[in-house]
Amino acid sequence: MNIDMIRAAADRLQGHARRTPILTSPFLDEIAGRQVLVKPECLQHTGSFKFRGGWSAVSALDEVTLKRGIIAYSSGNHAQGVALAAAKHGAPAVIVMPKNAPKLKIANTRALGAEVVLYDRAGGEQREEVGGRIAEERGLTLIRPYDEPQVIAGQGTTGLEIAAQAAEFGVTSGDVLVCCGGGGLSSGIALALEADAPDLRVRPCEPEGFDDVARSLRTGEIQSNPTQSGSLCDAIITPQPGNLTFPIMSRLCGPGLVVTEDEALRAMALAFKRLKIVVEPGGAVALAAALFHGENIEGDAVVAVCTGGNVDAEIFANAITRFD
Amino acid sequence: MNIDMIRAAADRLQGHARRTPILTSPFLDEIAGRQVLVKPECLQHTGSFKFRGGWSAVSALDEVTLKRGIIAYSSGNHAQGVALAAAKHGAPAVIVMPKNAPKLKIANTRALGAEVVLYDRAGGEQREEVGGRIAEERGLTLIRPYDEPQVIAGQGTTGLEIAAQAAEFGVTSGDVLVCCGGGGLSSGIALALEADAPDLRVRPCEPEGFDDVARSLRTGEIQSNPTQSGSLCDAIITPQPGNLTFPIMSRLCGPGLVVTEDEALRAMALAFKRLKIVVEPGGAVALAAALFHGENIEGDAVVAVCTGGNVDAEIFANAITRFD
Repeated sequence: MNIDMIRAAADRLQGHARRTPILTSPFLDEIAGRQVLVKPECLQHTGSFKFRGGWSAVSALDEVTLKRGIIAYSSGNHAQGVALAAAKHGAPAVIVMPKNAPKLKIANTRALGAEVVLYDRAGGEQREEVGGRIAEERGLTLIRPYDEPQVIAGQGTTGLEIAAQAAEFGVTSGDVLVCCGGGGLSSGIALALEADAPDLRVRPCEPEGFDDVARSLRTGEIQSNPTQSGSLCDAIITPQPGNLTFPIMSRLCGPGLVVTEDEALRAMALAFKRLKIVVEPGGAVALAAALFHGENIEGDAVVAVCTGGNVDAEIFANAITRFD
Repeated sequence: MNIDMIRAAADRLQGHARRTPILTSPFLDEIAGRQVLVKPECLQHTGSFKFRGGWSAVSALDEVTLKRGIIAYSSGNHAQGVALAAAKHGAPAVIVMPKNAPKLKIANTRALGAEVVLYDRAGGEQREEVGGRIAEERGLTLIRPYDEPQVIAGQGTTGLEIAAQAAEFGVTSGDVLVCCGGGGLSSGIALALEADAPDLRVRPCEPEGFDDVARSLRTGEIQSNPTQSGSLCDAIITPQPGNLTFPIMSRLCGPGLVVTEDEALRAMALAFKRLKIVVEPGGAVALAAALFHGENIEGDAVVAVCTGGNVDAEIFANAITRFD
């Protein structure tokens, strides 16, 4: 993993991924007590940054491999990102999803042209078994959600944009808050900033009770979450940081930040009211940390990445009316 | 009014207004039956395109005039756009607003540094009287919401961006749907397209029952709306097209398009689900026309401008859950 892979991914993403803008609001600056620059990856294709990694990984494959097809395991954003990237490359895609994944995410993944194979997570089926069998039978190439160099490279293109865009605001040092699951985005951005904006530092952000990355960074060893369900922040609930991503985060990131679920929902309501963007709970934890945990942040300005916006209408409606 | 004024406004807006991106979704294309390019001006500063016209008008004033201050009448988006533009120029601003304007909009306008003067619209007070008295006493310069050349020039910068951005998608001919109140944005975009993309044509879009522009274009004479209240699309409910804007629209625009309020709310729900942006009812009529009135539109692709996102949480929550 190095910066050259990220720059090469940026070349491949050119004209395909969106260069999302930076959004600001004087009202958010006042709450945070410093300037807040928001990078809204919810506005990316398929509603999350995952399209970057999906496109990066798919576009790195040769013609023969593409023709055989790709496979991914995901209950949500990675599924849609890979499905769209595969479709645009004319590559068949199989996405293995849990039977109880949100119906909309299953429907979207199918509508984007992928073959969805459901497995019974509750009944004890393992997606690796289900997917491994299909992959072997058909010679499919697996694209992992975060512990995959070309996926990290694709997510890292977000960091190249942040370095350039923050500089336009005169911001060249301080904390860059990133919603963190397995660490693909955090480690990718960290590598990009190391090269292009070495005084900007990634701070991985997580919801309370699922702070495996914060604890891993603190102890210097990979820690796991005791449970993997029961949070509205489903998009960033992973068992533990990745084997590829953790050493990068450990070397380059500042301490993790942890917010409550209610803080994430309040951040969603403020993003609705002040920025006019739709952010899902797991995509709002970095903004929540910027707004409500300023005492743990350094610098006159802070960058917060809103990583995704794939949220059910009811959950969103509840959040914005409850914290109006 | 000419293209040079729009280009000059674009120079003054450079680095101050946001160049909003173009958003797309295969799901919207499928509903519309053609490619849909969305220009999300809800992501503009203060949540609507009105910041462009406000900045253009304020930045065109000389130092002495700025120091005396500016005044505007508005119950909503123009108020906030002018207030922020004035504040950033260090100019005092008085905004005359109806007592029964949404509390949030009054609070926002104050928070952006303007002095808000309330008048009793229901009690028969005329804002021109209230405002005129203050303007004369203090020597303030009035900035009209649409019948004002520098305001039209500012809104027209949206059209320069559309011409360039649509071309990047290979779209150089077809209809550009614009939510239309007094016609400042429609006429500004029309002038910009005449110069930079002459095969793109503006189609003003309005809600049913408030289709003064569509009727004026059809008859060739300025027509009024019978009523000015009772619509969720408050942002674009004006008595009639402007004296400056109507001749421009009459010369350059295609026939107006009219949508129902429910169609506007459905478009809001789809913009939430597919584009992850927050659009207010009056800002969604153009997208509604693109999605649900395709039989009246020409070309393989259509551009729809989502003009604003200043909507109360409850109205938004109702729209997205009702049309989920």
